[in-house]
This record gives sequence, structure tokens and C-alpha cells, in this order.
Amino acid sequence: MNLDTAGDKIACPTKMTVLEKTIQEIGPIDQSWIEAAARRQLELTKPPGSLGRLEEIANRCAGIRESLELTANHPRIVLFAADHGVCAEGVSAYPQEVTAQMVENFLRGGAAINALARAGGIELRVVDVGVATTIPSSIRQATRSPAPPAGTRNFCEEPAMTEGEMNAAMETGIELARDAAAEGCDLLGFGEMGIGNTTSASAIAAALTGQPVEAVIGRGTGADDACLARKRSAIERGLALHSDRLGGVPARPGGRTRVRGPAPLACTTEILRCVGGFEIAAMCGFCLGAASRRIPVLTDGFIATAAAALAVRLCPAVSGYLFAAHRSTEPGHAHLLELVGQEPLLDLRMRLGEGTGVALAMKVMQAAIAAFTEMATFASAGVSNK
Amino acid sequence: MNLDTAGDKIACPTKMTVLEKTIQEIGPIDQSWIEAAARRQLELTKPPGSLGRLEEIANRCAGIRESLELTANHPRIVLFAADHGVCAEGVSAYPQEVTAQMVENFLRGGAAINALARAGGIELRVVDVGVATTIPSSIRQATRSPAPPAGTRNFCEEPAMTEGEMNAAMETGIELARDAAAEGCDLLGFGEMGIGNTTSASAIAAALTGQPVEAVIGRGTGADDACLARKRSAIERGLALHSDRLGGVPARPGGRTRVRGPAPLACTTEILRCVGGFEIAAMCGFCLGAASRRIPVLTDGFIATAAAALAVRLCPAVSGYLFAAHRSTEPGHAHLLELVGQEPLLDLRMRLGEGTGVALAMKVMQAAIAAFTEMATFASAGVSNK
Repeated sequence: MNLDTAGDKIACPTKMTVLEKTIQEIGPIDQSWIEAAARRQLELTKPPGSLGRLEEIANRCAGIRESLELTANHPRIVLFAADHGVCAEGVSAYPQEVTAQMVENFLRGGAAINALARAGGIELRVVDVGVATTIPSSIRQATRSPAPPAGTRNFCEEPAMTEGEMNAAMETGIELARDAAAEGCDLLGFGEMGIGNTTSASAIAAALTGQPVEAVIGRGTGADDACLARKRSAIERGLALHSDRLGGVPARPGGRTRVRGPAPLACTTEILRCVGGFEIAAMCGFCLGAASRRIPVLTDGFIATAAAALAVRLCPAVSGYLFAAHRSTEPGHAHLLELVGQEPLLDLRMRLGEGTGVALAMKVMQAAIAAFTEMATFASAGVSNK
Repeated sequence: MNLDTAGDKIACPTKMTVLEKTIQEIGPIDQSWIEAAARRQLELTKPPGSLGRLEEIANRCAGIRESLELTANHPRIVLFAADHGVCAEGVSAYPQEVTAQMVENFLRGGAAINALARAGGIELRVVDVGVATTIPSSIRQATRSPAPPAGTRNFCEEPAMTEGEMNAAMETGIELARDAAAEGCDLLGFGEMGIGNTTSASAIAAALTGQPVEAVIGRGTGADDACLARKRSAIERGLALHSDRLGGVPARPGGRTRVRGPAPLACTTEILRCVGGFEIAAMCGFCLGAASRRIPVLTDGFIATAAAALAVRLCPAVSGYLFAAHRSTEPGHAHLLELVGQEPLLDLRMRLGEGTGVALAMKVMQAAIAAFTEMATFASAGVSNK
């Protein structure tokens, strides 16, 4: 075969975007490796199935890595931060400047995720993908070019992002997953910080699942009744404004907006662009990037799972690479978990975000891999089997 | 006050047993420290209550330790192993020699608990409190004097233990908790190994809770239908044989034994002695010892929780020191959890024992303490509060 000709053949098609190329690289997880791992589990010195979900985790990791030589020694959490224009509608219990203040807190090591990552021996990276206030360069972890945008636009008035902005954020997520793979990470997870982002995530959840808004909203960081009413109104107005792009139906004047039935595939990136956020776009890209490098990846709570649900909608095979860290107390989370096809590992009534659920669940994942790779067999230990 | 006189007064009463003395030393957890911790939680850079059960854990640890200076840097799991005479009734899927074989496996580092403890940086101690086969001294961790008994007697025919044997096993558990405290352990947990011990734990559960036998038995390590029927029969015969000691009613000839209502307090040690096991007695003592030294202590699955339930019945204040690591798939576990008044931290469909659930839950406990002690406050981090 003439390599030049082959090269020509590859060069021929219309230039693919980074997103399209990434999706094309994602293969399904390998059922034959899952079965090989399940057979191996039966040889280990424990009653069959007695490690429950730890066995499921290890077996699926074998399907992801296409190997029984599993490791989880280099876990990394990437925490994406961004601001939301919809904050102008008074949807959060906290003022918008808290996003930047918390990013500083992360970088100085004083937030919950810092304590949990340290306790768990987990590497943490913090990335500004669109915080409204400039983070002081002295404490910035990664300088990116071009500089991240100063938050999304208010989705009640216009699409939250331009297509270019959205693609840049997704590509940042893809890149960070690939960098992690290149740097030897064998277990990934992601979290977020962004005042107002449960509003964005609820709008995405409504658009993706076809659930009414009231089924997918909650109090986020602690909204009171008036704040919750503003949040609901903002989501309904946003979904109505963008309904022809989202595959739903326009709101009846004075009536409640309901996006009827799940949005068609073609509308997925439009949902993200119109009512999403930069950190959500980046997390969506991160899921795709991790799956393209065959690395297991943990989603955190409600907002992170909204991003994962978008990734699964863009590429259903991503579901096999995802592990849901925990069940958030946000009411919309269950609908998104159903969409990504994952049952959470933990239920500790948490609702903080930041990747805090991931930091805990990574310890369960590491334990599952340790049991699988380190346990003696009935034969090697001289233990009588049934 | 004349010290000699005071000394006389203390010396006067009938000499207390180690068990009585330990129970007398156990005070309630301190509500005012729990409230102080809850106030501190509100200052940390997170929405109030957003760390869910992690906040409950840290607050209760403050009540246990009577301090906000919490640590969980020296976790230790003690794994108690013993054999059960009731194995003669064919109640287990595995032969009795597996207890000793698994103890060797623990000591050589090849069992699930070894992998999980290593992954979690948790110290593991293995203690033979009544294994039928002598463990080779070359790998024995702790030599005790007198040598542990060679398993319990068959409780279908006679009480499983003499009072002296039972007390010795309980005292071993108390001692090991006190040793751990003296050696600086700040987080304790326990697990067990003993072929046939779900049968003993089910008998205890029925006697303690007044539940019918069918509500508290399960397949243990994987009993088939015939094995399960033998297990049920053995428990019913055992409870009938000892019913006048257990506070229940004698079985009608040919009828099913039902211990009506919870057993009265005075019968608690008789339940343990008649249908319990050496590892269960030791774990019961370990709970009491940990509480007497004000150290939080994690119970593992069904059998460990049976021991904890006995400890709580002997001294209700123990409940405040206990954390239930996980929800076992054994059907009787829920009844025992209700009795100890604890909701499990994890539910990973595990049913292995050995302390495997504890090893995972200790990471959650450590994370809870890390968040509480290491997080910045709104004031110190310059983050705007609501």
C-alpha cells in the first residue's frame, strides 16, 4: 500500500473539529475484558460477589483499560470555574464575586476540596475557564491563551455563549484530559465552581430530559423561596427564548414552559451553548477526552452530571467510562444520572460541588482496584474453596 | 477529705469485673461540643450543611473527643477470628478449616482486608480469639496467654461458651481497644472472620430484637437452599434449647421458635454466651473499650453489628461512639442497625466481613475530619457570606 496515497485519503475529508475528532476516537468499553475480570474475581479469596460494587468497578475498569493489570495510583481531579450571566436574575444565595473568591481559596488550599484531596492523596488542578473577575496571576495555576472570557451572557436575554466560545471551553476540557493521560494519570474526576451554575444545569437537565422545570430545580447553595422562584422563572424564560434551538416547544404566554420529550441529538450543543456555562462545556469536553484516552472518569454532583449527560448525548459510548461519585441532594440529579446510565457510589447527602464527592469516591475506586490486583487466589493461599 | 478514707470507700464494694468497670467508665458523648462543632461548620467556606453527613461525622467526633482539635491520623482495624461449634450442623458453604486458612491469608497479606487497609493507609491487627486450628507461631501477630480456646461448642447442644471463656474473650477486646488508645490510635474499627458466624449473629439478632428467625437469616458466604434450611433449623433449635436463659419463650413442640419482644437487659450476656462466638464477644468488648477511651469506633457488617448491638444493650451510651461503616446485604443487618441507632455511611452491596466496609468508611471519616479542621473560614479567606 502506498503511504502517500493513504495519506491523501486521510487528508481528503472536510477538516474535522477537535470535538468531532475526539468523539470519533472514542470506542466502546470491551466486554471480553469485563468478562475476563469477572472470571478472575472468582479465583480471589472471598465468596463470589461478596465485594459487591467493588467488583463491578474493577471489572468495568478492565473493560475500559483492556487489561487486567489495573492501576489507580495517579488520580487527578480537575476543578473548572466560571461565572454565569444569569446571576443578574438573582438566582443564587451568594453574590457572583464568590466564584473568584473561591478560586483564590482553592489556589490557597482552604476549600473543602483541598482538604479532601489532601486527605486522599489526590492531585487537584484548578482551571479558570470563564470567571468574571481576573484571578491574580501570582496564584494562577495555568495560564491559558487566549484569556478566558469574563463569564457567560444572561441566557434569559441571549445565548449564554457564542459557538466559538463554547468550542474553546470544550477543547480546554478535552486538552486537560489528554494532558492528564500523557502525564500518567490513571483515574480522573472533575468538579466545578460557579455561582449560579445550578440554574444553568437545571435548564440543561430540563432540555435534555424533557422533565418539567419544577422537577429539576433545587435550592443549590441554599436559595430561599423568593430566590427559588426567581431561579425557576429565569429557567422558564430562558428555555422559552431558545426553544426553537433546543428542540422543544415555545412557552404559551403566561403558561409554564415545558420542553416536551428529550431533545434530539442535533440540539445537544445548542442546549449547551444557549443555557450552559463555560465550566459545563469544559467538563463535557473533559469526559470526552478521558473516554478517548480510555481512562475511567468520575462525575461529581448535579452540575458535573449535567456536563456528563451532554457528553453521553454527544457520544453514548462515553457512559461506559463514567462512574457517578455520589448522589447529590439536588432534586434534578436523579434524572441526569438516569441519562448517563450510572448509579452513584456514595450517598452522603452532600451538595457542595467542587469535586468533593469525587475525592471520596476515588478512594472507593482505588480500593476496588487494590482488592482486584493484590488479593491472593484460593490456589496461591491454600484456602479451600466451596 | 482524707484520701485513705476515700480509698477505703472505693475499695469497699464487691470487686467489679473488668466488664463492669469498663461500662462504668463510659460517659455519654458531649452535646455541648457537638453544638460548638456545628457552629464552627457555619464559619467554613461552604454553604451551610452542604457537606451533609461529613458534617455530622465531624460534629459527633467533637462530642466524642470533647474537643474541636480533631484528628484521624492513626486509624486501626482489629480483625477478630474464631471458630463456631454450630458448623457441625452444616450451616456454611465453606468448611470450617477455612477460618484458619484465612487467618494465615490475613497474616501473609493476601486477603481483601489487607488490600483495602494498605490502599487506605490503615493499620490492621489480626487476633485469634478462638480458632479451632492452631495458627503457626511464625506468622502469629500476638501471642496471648492463656492460649485461645479451640472454637465454641455447638449451641444446638449446649451453651457455646462457659462464662469464664466469654469473659476472657470480652476482656481481650477491651484490652485491645485500650492498647490502641495508649498507642495513639484516634480512629478504630473492627471486623471478623469465622466460618459459621452469620448463624451465630442471626441467633443473637433474633434474641435481641425479637424478630422471627426468617427475618434475620441470609445466605452468608453463599449458602444454597439446603444449607440455608439447615442454618434456620440450627438457629431455631438453639434458641429453643436456651430459651429460658434468653428471656424468650420456649418453642412449642413442632412449632417455630419465636423470641417474643426484645430480651431484657439481664439476659444480654447470656445471649452472647449461649449462641454467640468468641470473636463476637471480643468485638463487643472492643466497642466498650473504645467508648471507655472516647474513641470513635466503626462497626463493619452483620456479624460486627451483632457484637455492637450487644455492647449497646449492655451500655446504651456506646451508641454515640459507634459509626456504622456500611449496609450489608445480609437481611438481618437492618434490624441490628436500628438497635445500635446508626445509619450506615456506605451501601456498596458488600457482604464479606473482615472489616472491609470499615476500611472504606474510615476514608470518609478521615475526609470529614480533614474538612472540619483544615478548611478556611469565610473571614480568613475573604469570601463573601450570604
